[in-house]
Amino acid sequence: MGNKKYYLGLDVGGTNLVAGVVDEEYRIISRFDSPTFADRTIDEIVADMARVSLEAVRAGGLSMDDMSSWGIGMPSCVNKKTNLLVHANCFGWRNVPIYDYLRDKLPLPVFIDNDANCAAYGESLAGAAKGCANALMLTLGTGLGGGVIIDGRIYSGADNMGSEFGHTKIVREGVRCTCGQKGCLEAYCSSTALIRIAKESVAKHPDSMLLELAGGSPDGISGKTVFDASGLGDKVAVEIVDDFIGNLVAGISSFIVLFRPEVIILGGGLSNNESLFGPLNEKVMECTFGASEIGVPKIIKASLGNDAGIIGAAYLEKIKS
Amino acid sequence: MGNKKYYLGLDVGGTNLVAGVVDEEYRIISRFDSPTFADRTIDEIVADMARVSLEAVRAGGLSMDDMSSWGIGMPSCVNKKTNLLVHANCFGWRNVPIYDYLRDKLPLPVFIDNDANCAAYGESLAGAAKGCANALMLTLGTGLGGGVIIDGRIYSGADNMGSEFGHTKIVREGVRCTCGQKGCLEAYCSSTALIRIAKESVAKHPDSMLLELAGGSPDGISGKTVFDASGLGDKVAVEIVDDFIGNLVAGISSFIVLFRPEVIILGGGLSNNESLFGPLNEKVMECTFGASEIGVPKIIKASLGNDAGIIGAAYLEKIKS
Repeated sequence: MGNKKYYLGLDVGGTNLVAGVVDEEYRIISRFDSPTFADRTIDEIVADMARVSLEAVRAGGLSMDDMSSWGIGMPSCVNKKTNLLVHANCFGWRNVPIYDYLRDKLPLPVFIDNDANCAAYGESLAGAAKGCANALMLTLGTGLGGGVIIDGRIYSGADNMGSEFGHTKIVREGVRCTCGQKGCLEAYCSSTALIRIAKESVAKHPDSMLLELAGGSPDGISGKTVFDASGLGDKVAVEIVDDFIGNLVAGISSFIVLFRPEVIILGGGLSNNESLFGPLNEKVMECTFGASEIGVPKIIKASLGNDAGIIGAAYLEKIKS
Repeated sequence: MGNKKYYLGLDVGGTNLVAGVVDEEYRIISRFDSPTFADRTIDEIVADMARVSLEAVRAGGLSMDDMSSWGIGMPSCVNKKTNLLVHANCFGWRNVPIYDYLRDKLPLPVFIDNDANCAAYGESLAGAAKGCANALMLTLGTGLGGGVIIDGRIYSGADNMGSEFGHTKIVREGVRCTCGQKGCLEAYCSSTALIRIAKESVAKHPDSMLLELAGGSPDGISGKTVFDASGLGDKVAVEIVDDFIGNLVAGISSFIVLFRPEVIILGGGLSNNESLFGPLNEKVMECTFGASEIGVPKIIKASLGNDAGIIGAAYLEKIKS
């Protein structure tokens, strides 16, 4: 007989499936990962989700009897009203009865939430926002995701489809976003956006250091290239980064006046640019309603990296059961 | 001995104090009001808050023994962490220990929340959002206020200072708002904003019907003037209203993707323009992320008017005790 003191978490990404066994102190004590091969059938992927999770348990020298539950972070949302996984673009899934697929795959209760929500929850349990019952996390990667923790719980709206920070409007009738709408924050503050803007800029300013740092071709430009060139004082890159920060400040200041979190955590690739945090904190203080009277939350870097999503997923039972 | 089946609610405004006794079916069975005279001392105003509330009880032929609690909607917020009323601009109050002032004024437990939150809560209990555990209300008046109900409770952030919908940023580095910041939704979608824009427009287009409907002087322009002129087909006014709707759509679409309420209620003077709702609903459907897949909440008119704030205040004990 096990003591059920461990929590099994799985982060389902378009590229990898990563499972971990998490102990009562939020430490990942064993893990296992495997490529997702996203173009397989649902049955194949679901079977692999179970296999990878089981391997993580075995890797820790434990058995299913030791596990309290199986928590899963998905690149999608389960609609609270229909219990269907609404859309997982990387798999091409639409309205999938995911709980039915997962039933009996492992002898554990299953809890599912959006991966960005799981990451925010994980950071609030054990990472940069530890001890904060109210935290907001933005993930600045290819896209712009986010999650919000209210009173220690994931908040994602009436139907579980909310906290889509990347698709709030920052410019009315603005740049076309990958979602089809216009002016979304994601269309200005993601690495995809940075790369798009940088490419447009080097076309006009081929003498910019951007091109050199990118190996001579616009196709070599990454988010990091832009921040590196800006750090070296390249005028074109400095302008792009300033504009990026200005847009991010506008978005964050709106999120603050709505949610008043105790802290804001930035994760994702772009958050590795440490030079971002100084001006970001300064300008949010300057541009946010009520800042001088009641203060603004500090904006800090996420501390758990990809582990946040596994820890958050593993602990879903604490807020969902 | 009373049966404590009534709830005493008070709406504190800059102009009037309005109290009502609310029964278990959310009906206001008696009421009393009196001018606020906002320039008086705190002690005087607090004494009057108690007097007006007591008179409402008497007007219903009831006694304090019949009252379960005293709920108060204030044009400010009580910081959850300090228990101080942070700022009530109409009174010039800053960081007032309001619960200390109110203690023993009436022999009832006291509950306080922001007036816009109380109105949203009241509408969700008994008005346009009745039966919706998740609702969002925007009040389009002199300013733009709002409140959000999540799982049947008022949500206003970690410190109770959130859900400031009017001060989310709709335009980066946009028009200066009365709050001192730039580009706030309130600076585009309030009657103050409409009047400012209309005055600017008639200065350029003195032949607009706006001036005629305003009695020949720009100072006669109100929010209603603009909607009336637009309804009559005045080109200048039509353009102003279209732009107003466009900005409101941008704001609302952001609120939807964050909160995913079941319904959005519009209150305040500008919501009386019925012609607003058709295009607003249509454009929000068109411009909101995920709308075609998961739908968008309907935008409807508030139904309780000023009573919403009294009913919401009266029922604060249900969510605060």
